[in-house]
Amino acid sequence: MRALIMRDKELRVGEFPTCAPGQGEVLIKVNACGICGSDIHALKHGEEFVRQSKQGGALGLDMDTRRDVVMGHEFCGEILEYGNDCARNISLGTNVCSIPALLRNNVIQTLGYSNEHPGGYAEYMCLTESFLEPVRNGLSPTLAALTEPMAVGLHAVNKARLETNDVPLVIGCGPVGLAVIAELRLKNIHPIVAADFSPTRRKLAEAMGADVVVDPNEKSPYESWQEVAALSQDNDRNRPGWIGQKFRPAVVFECVGTPGVINSIMENVQHGARIIVVGVCMEHDHFHPVYGINKELNLQFVVAYNRKEFAQAHRHISDGELLVEPLITGQVSLDDSINAFEELASPDKHAKIIVHPHFKD
Amino acid sequence: MRALIMRDKELRVGEFPTCAPGQGEVLIKVNACGICGSDIHALKHGEEFVRQSKQGGALGLDMDTRRDVVMGHEFCGEILEYGNDCARNISLGTNVCSIPALLRNNVIQTLGYSNEHPGGYAEYMCLTESFLEPVRNGLSPTLAALTEPMAVGLHAVNKARLETNDVPLVIGCGPVGLAVIAELRLKNIHPIVAADFSPTRRKLAEAMGADVVVDPNEKSPYESWQEVAALSQDNDRNRPGWIGQKFRPAVVFECVGTPGVINSIMENVQHGARIIVVGVCMEHDHFHPVYGINKELNLQFVVAYNRKEFAQAHRHISDGELLVEPLITGQVSLDDSINAFEELASPDKHAKIIVHPHFKD
Repeated sequence: MRALIMRDKELRVGEFPTCAPGQGEVLIKVNACGICGSDIHALKHGEEFVRQSKQGGALGLDMDTRRDVVMGHEFCGEILEYGNDCARNISLGTNVCSIPALLRNNVIQTLGYSNEHPGGYAEYMCLTESFLEPVRNGLSPTLAALTEPMAVGLHAVNKARLETNDVPLVIGCGPVGLAVIAELRLKNIHPIVAADFSPTRRKLAEAMGADVVVDPNEKSPYESWQEVAALSQDNDRNRPGWIGQKFRPAVVFECVGTPGVINSIMENVQHGARIIVVGVCMEHDHFHPVYGINKELNLQFVVAYNRKEFAQAHRHISDGELLVEPLITGQVSLDDSINAFEELASPDKHAKIIVHPHFKD
Repeated sequence: MRALIMRDKELRVGEFPTCAPGQGEVLIKVNACGICGSDIHALKHGEEFVRQSKQGGALGLDMDTRRDVVMGHEFCGEILEYGNDCARNISLGTNVCSIPALLRNNVIQTLGYSNEHPGGYAEYMCLTESFLEPVRNGLSPTLAALTEPMAVGLHAVNKARLETNDVPLVIGCGPVGLAVIAELRLKNIHPIVAADFSPTRRKLAEAMGADVVVDPNEKSPYESWQEVAALSQDNDRNRPGWIGQKFRPAVVFECVGTPGVINSIMENVQHGARIIVVGVCMEHDHFHPVYGINKELNLQFVVAYNRKEFAQAHRHISDGELLVEPLITGQVSLDDSINAFEELASPDKHAKIIVHPHFKD
């Protein structure tokens, strides 16, 4: 089959062996697969990316970047064939999503960062039947492919354990920040303050439901946050628990993932703030613990989502509660996807580009 | 009056003006004052210490280290005289403790890091009447002076929001780590695992209530933790919420406060661990966010205590629930306190040295 193949930090479109669905697995025809920032990172940093995924005793990725890899973990496709021992509850031809994992011989294996199992930048892939999420309400594969990135946002918002008084500030409005904003809006947490240097992304933040959108070149996001989170001196500030407080509680979502951002947030947030680290900074980073200490900050690092959240994110999209269409800023064939990887490096133009492995140029 | 005076990174014993108790204040004769690691830091780093206390928009210390400062914020002394407008509920001669703060003209001012208000390394000091904590049960001023450092431990343990299944690991058994261990024991959280390179401190950790004490030169504290926190495969691991878990939840108290320690904990703890940062690292630090991300760690920075916790720590000591006597490894006069500051730099010999400003050599 044709696939976008990564090897030694280079991408090319070529032939990759079509997999055969094993026991309890299905073969799907991939109809859409979103390009994720992690894929760009994996391409650029190769072995370092794999090494870092294993840091801190984590399970990590088992991928040799000097050999062929077909990435793509935000996929949607239709069932072509069932393997042995399947329940076959979903009819052939149905579009499905899945968490990017394959359960083979009782071992969870990664889809999208593997030499063995092709990800969604290929014409076909194998999935574990019990992980399938059938696409609901006739949602297009293109929109259904956003299930995975939206699940990331949902998980981050869940881990933040928000209360109705919290005022969120989203730093960085790439796909992750936009997913966080969308899920915050769905949870009816307001006002949502969001900041990004890119005008395109600021517009998208507004479309996703941010109430206040800031260009950090023009105004401090923390100042904008204070304006909308201020408690009125007469009423709110005498409520039990809030006595003497000037502002509602701050919950800051770090959705950038480059060195220095966590420290900058720690420096600028108010006392007692919670910082949810969603952006994936894989590099060495620096910070002043004294910011955290002086202000008794809390940092919650988060990653990925669980299966329930994946299913929930899919319902949010397929029920029309999350209007994700604006996020899609490009749709390309396999051949054009190489170019798309380059375009995504400049954040001003794109949010999410969807690869369609069966598009003909 | 005589006092231990700091100026330009040097200590000397000399004359300092005795304060006069203002409105709502008392004058006390200082009977005991513990030397805190922060005092050693303030002496060594001078202006940098003040600058860092203000970082991140914190209120910070208003102290000019090129002018005379009398430090000491872990004090106990007897009331000699009341100022105007006092309730006078405590009889003269009673020993009292207080949070190291003076409320003057409705502004909170620091005691112990100030050019205006002498701290406990002086024969006399002024305190705010409404902050006084009368010493209970005839506790000696020497032990009562441990109220402040024990309140630090109590606050850290409170902020950890421990549940009975949590297994704590205390990294660093200086006065802060020892206070944490003592308060953990009081909360009946077991087993308590503690680690320190110093044999003296390991012995103290045992005396304070640690169940497992590790020399990191001989064994990884995380390995020791795993041994006692392991869930038995047959029973525990099938409990709801614990299904598939190998270990009970980890709560690690960082009580060292030097660069690299937070990162090392992040690298070595298990998935989902909570890290309570009690050690005060005032230097620039580094870390790999990916450790936090891969394992969804939570970092809670903490500092100081509130007045309720201060009073509670005093009750713990004065009721004999916290046996703090082993912590006191030295008692010195003002003249000998200069030497004590030097001895405390080597952690192997001492935990807490108490200064007695009225001791004669």
